[in-house]
Amino acid sequence: MTNPTAAMLVIGDEILSGRTRDANMHYLAGELAKIGIDLKEVRVISDDPDAIVAAVQALSQSFDTVFTSGGIGPTHDDITADCVARAFDTHIDIRDDARAILAAHYKKAGTELNTARLRMARIPDDAALIENPVSAAPGFSIKNVHVMAGVPAVFQAMVASILPTLTGGAPLLSQTLRINRGEGDIAGPLGALAQDFPGLSIGSYPFQKNGVYGANIVIRGTDGTQVDAAMMQLAGLFPE
Amino acid sequence: MTNPTAAMLVIGDEILSGRTRDANMHYLAGELAKIGIDLKEVRVISDDPDAIVAAVQALSQSFDTVFTSGGIGPTHDDITADCVARAFDTHIDIRDDARAILAAHYKKAGTELNTARLRMARIPDDAALIENPVSAAPGFSIKNVHVMAGVPAVFQAMVASILPTLTGGAPLLSQTLRINRGEGDIAGPLGALAQDFPGLSIGSYPFQKNGVYGANIVIRGTDGTQVDAAMMQLAGLFPE
Repeated sequence: MTNPTAAMLVIGDEILSGRTRDANMHYLAGELAKIGIDLKEVRVISDDPDAIVAAVQALSQSFDTVFTSGGIGPTHDDITADCVARAFDTHIDIRDDARAILAAHYKKAGTELNTARLRMARIPDDAALIENPVSAAPGFSIKNVHVMAGVPAVFQAMVASILPTLTGGAPLLSQTLRINRGEGDIAGPLGALAQDFPGLSIGSYPFQKNGVYGANIVIRGTDGTQVDAAMMQLAGLFPE
Repeated sequence: MTNPTAAMLVIGDEILSGRTRDANMHYLAGELAKIGIDLKEVRVISDDPDAIVAAVQALSQSFDTVFTSGGIGPTHDDITADCVARAFDTHIDIRDDARAILAAHYKKAGTELNTARLRMARIPDDAALIENPVSAAPGFSIKNVHVMAGVPAVFQAMVASILPTLTGGAPLLSQTLRINRGEGDIAGPLGALAQDFPGLSIGSYPFQKNGVYGANIVIRGTDGTQVDAAMMQLAGLFPE
């Protein structure tokens, strides 16, 4: 039995220009691992309508679930909602349910619900709204694509409300052993270990600190007994 | 005149599993912006041969230059070199020039050049070696794809030796203005400003700190006079 798969689409010139370091990818990856959904690909693309449409279509066809982040605010560069509608050839306009959420929120704050803010009520037909407990403006889910904000606090809140609606698989378990020897010394036995445990993923992540070469060996899998057995064998191969 | 384009391919289960936070994307993005190469897409994919081959082919066809990171070490999970060779239907084996580099390095270190380490001399025919001043094992360039290590210190050293060989364009200039007002208040005038300067990218990146809503407005472009003019106009729209 294999786990459901997921992809993430990060929409943002600010990351590709080197200005901002993405934080949402790392967060989502960790959350998905916990519930047994395998994050298989992340794409970061620029604020370009054709690129967004093509990526949404490609990822939506290739993976069970797609998460997008960024581009659903009130400013001119927030074009994600319209692009997702185009990707699915769906009509999009200001929707009453989203407008009501914004109206209530801005009334309470004593802020005008102006034309710009109303842009955030543009939701494709048939999409389900994703709650935003931080700043009200909703995300939405259409087909297998969940469209969420890029601001980390909002992104995380939206992920929290989406994840319980998804069917996960076996959570990915992982154990790490740090070995203070060069990868070249451990590669042979490690490869043999990987062959002994074909159901596990055994990764070697080298590091170099203060002139010392070493590697973190990470054993991942959904079968805890197998992970334990492989880790025991690994520790026996390279006693400290 | 448009700038050359680039894409990056990050190969690594360790990022998709949430274990490690990628550092190379942010570094490369910043370096490319300086020399006027537009980073258009980053893909993070797992250590899966078919996925790597497909991504190398797709990105190599769509962009002027492609940079890969990860998967060129001596362990069983280092499969990038073989996958890149497969993507270009090119023969790959241990190459004498790469072997000589490793032999010299390990001789000096008093370390055996064993079978595992020799894997790092597997280089596709016709590829040019990329120097690795940190730990010797070379990267390589084939067609428009530069294959580099994932360890940040090595990745950065390889980028430093590749960039001078590339033809850049006009460096991307950028100025930022922090505005302590909600995006909904600034969106209207900001959209009009973006229309006044079609040659620039004007992005709004909202934040929320201690209950205060604001946005960093980033004006990017290759024409410094235009960037200055737009920033002046922006500052006039939202005086502190």
